Amino acid sequence: MAFTEALRLHPGPVDLSTIDTKATPEWPGTSSDDKAAAKEALFEVGVELADLQERLYARGIEGDQRRVLLVLQGMDTTGKGGIVRDAAGLMEPQGLDIASFKAPTKAEKRHDFLWRIEKRLPGPGKIGVFDRSHYEDVLIARVHGFAKPEEIERRYGAINDFEAGLVESGVTIVKVMLHATKERQAERLMARLEDPTKYWKYNPADIDEREHWDAYQEAYEIALERTNTSVAPWLVVPAHRKWYRKLAVAQVLLETLRGLDLEWPAPDFDVEAEKKRLKASM
Amino acid sequence: MAFTEALRLHPGPVDLSTIDTKATPEWPGTSSDDKAAAKEALFEVGVELADLQERLYARGIEGDQRRVLLVLQGMDTTGKGGIVRDAAGLMEPQGLDIASFKAPTKAEKRHDFLWRIEKRLPGPGKIGVFDRSHYEDVLIARVHGFAKPEEIERRYGAINDFEAGLVESGVTIVKVMLHATKERQAERLMARLEDPTKYWKYNPADIDEREHWDAYQEAYEIALERTNTSVAPWLVVPAHRKWYRKLAVAQVLLETLRGLDLEWPAPDFDVEAEKKRLKASM
Repeated sequence: MAFTEALRLHPGPVDLSTIDTKATPEWPGTSSDDKAAAKEALFEVGVELADLQERLYARGIEGDQRRVLLVLQGMDTTGKGGIVRDAAGLMEPQGLDIASFKAPTKAEKRHDFLWRIEKRLPGPGKIGVFDRSHYEDVLIARVHGFAKPEEIERRYGAINDFEAGLVESGVTIVKVMLHATKERQAERLMARLEDPTKYWKYNPADIDEREHWDAYQEAYEIALERTNTSVAPWLVVPAHRKWYRKLAVAQVLLETLRGLDLEWPAPDFDVEAEKKRLKASM
Repeated sequence: MAFTEALRLHPGPVDLSTIDTKATPEWPGTSSDDKAAAKEALFEVGVELADLQERLYARGIEGDQRRVLLVLQGMDTTGKGGIVRDAAGLMEPQGLDIASFKAPTKAEKRHDFLWRIEKRLPGPGKIGVFDRSHYEDVLIARVHGFAKPEEIERRYGAINDFEAGLVESGVTIVKVMLHATKERQAERLMARLEDPTKYWKYNPADIDEREHWDAYQEAYEIALERTNTSVAPWLVVPAHRKWYRKLAVAQVLLETLRGLDLEWPAPDFDVEAEKKRLKASM
């Protein structure tokens, strides 16, 4: 569990400014050789990950209740979308449940904030990926005052209870915060403004949100501290370098699946008898 | 539109036994060199396909109503799942809507057969992939008598009306039948029975269905003939060879997207003004 351990947030107060966004925990360095090696490593991780994901899915069909939920949080341009795309490319679509949470609809607002989350949880044998999540309800909701302070306060506990229940029912929760700087975000946004094939990804409102950068960092620090439980701890992934954040999240997923000891399920039919039936069906 | 044209089913009565499942239309041959060249071609198709899919998605965000629906039909083991997985790996998950249709639920059975289909149609800018579809309601339903003959009869017309309406609203429909032999299916099923990592994909009921092979072929021939409309024609892809069927479906998708003339959308903001705002936000 090398990457998982190295990236895990220690219990207690969180100060994101002390976590280097350019760091590469568990990786030797950032030279072009190191970067090339990371890409090769990612390929190998992918092969094993695809195999283990298929085992998890196969076991799910046979009744194993276990599943995995990867929660991705991070400011705009920290790479959530790229990680979702990579995961989609690697694994069987039928074994992957991707949910992207935008601003809640009117109908969703009439319910408790966890209502829409519960509807998108992965079933047995599946890997769920949340691109944003219930954490938005203590992040943007706090920064913009979409909920009263006492309601925000209630939500930290509600999240912990909710996640503890999930773990109890067989869900392994992997919570990843992709961590980058305000300066890095400006570089990524400028790249979008300099490339006509990227204009559609740009939204003028993104600049307005940048004014609240410090408030978001504070909201993250509070949320990370309050929900960093032993059953569902937070990992903070330095997200400055695209190749590192992809490798790190893939490694964490791999270590998680390895930890589940996924044997292929035994057949629930008589293999030799079926071979005979098949031959007779020609 | 080379592959699309070559694979298109001619209007009129259909006799699947006259279509060679090992053929490779639009590809020079089946030597190991030809196969290697097909894999390289598939890679290049993938790069262009990913680019065009992103343009379609970007245009959808800006209000373009067009979308694509790939309908995959074929007997068990003809490779629908593999094509879905490849498509998922190639394109942005947010731009892809994959729907897999199994036996209808009790709730679905209370509605018209198109009810559950309409709920899974791709939105503007998206590529929908149907792994099985409304065609099951004139295939398995016909073979097993799940609906009365007059209801089956009604459905061919209902499907044509439904698809014509979709085309009218901006959907380009690509209907693909993956065509293989009963002997080839036996080989694929035997491969599953000989590999413990594939047992979970095997279902003894698959053998029972093989007894109805000829009835299924007849049901396909009738369905193909009755729904092979000019606005939503059928393509029959020889599916014996995995490398060929993957390349053929990818090429057809590529030709379809090329035909949509997908320019990147113009920005709906002042690019230079946004660059200034961004610089001021540091």
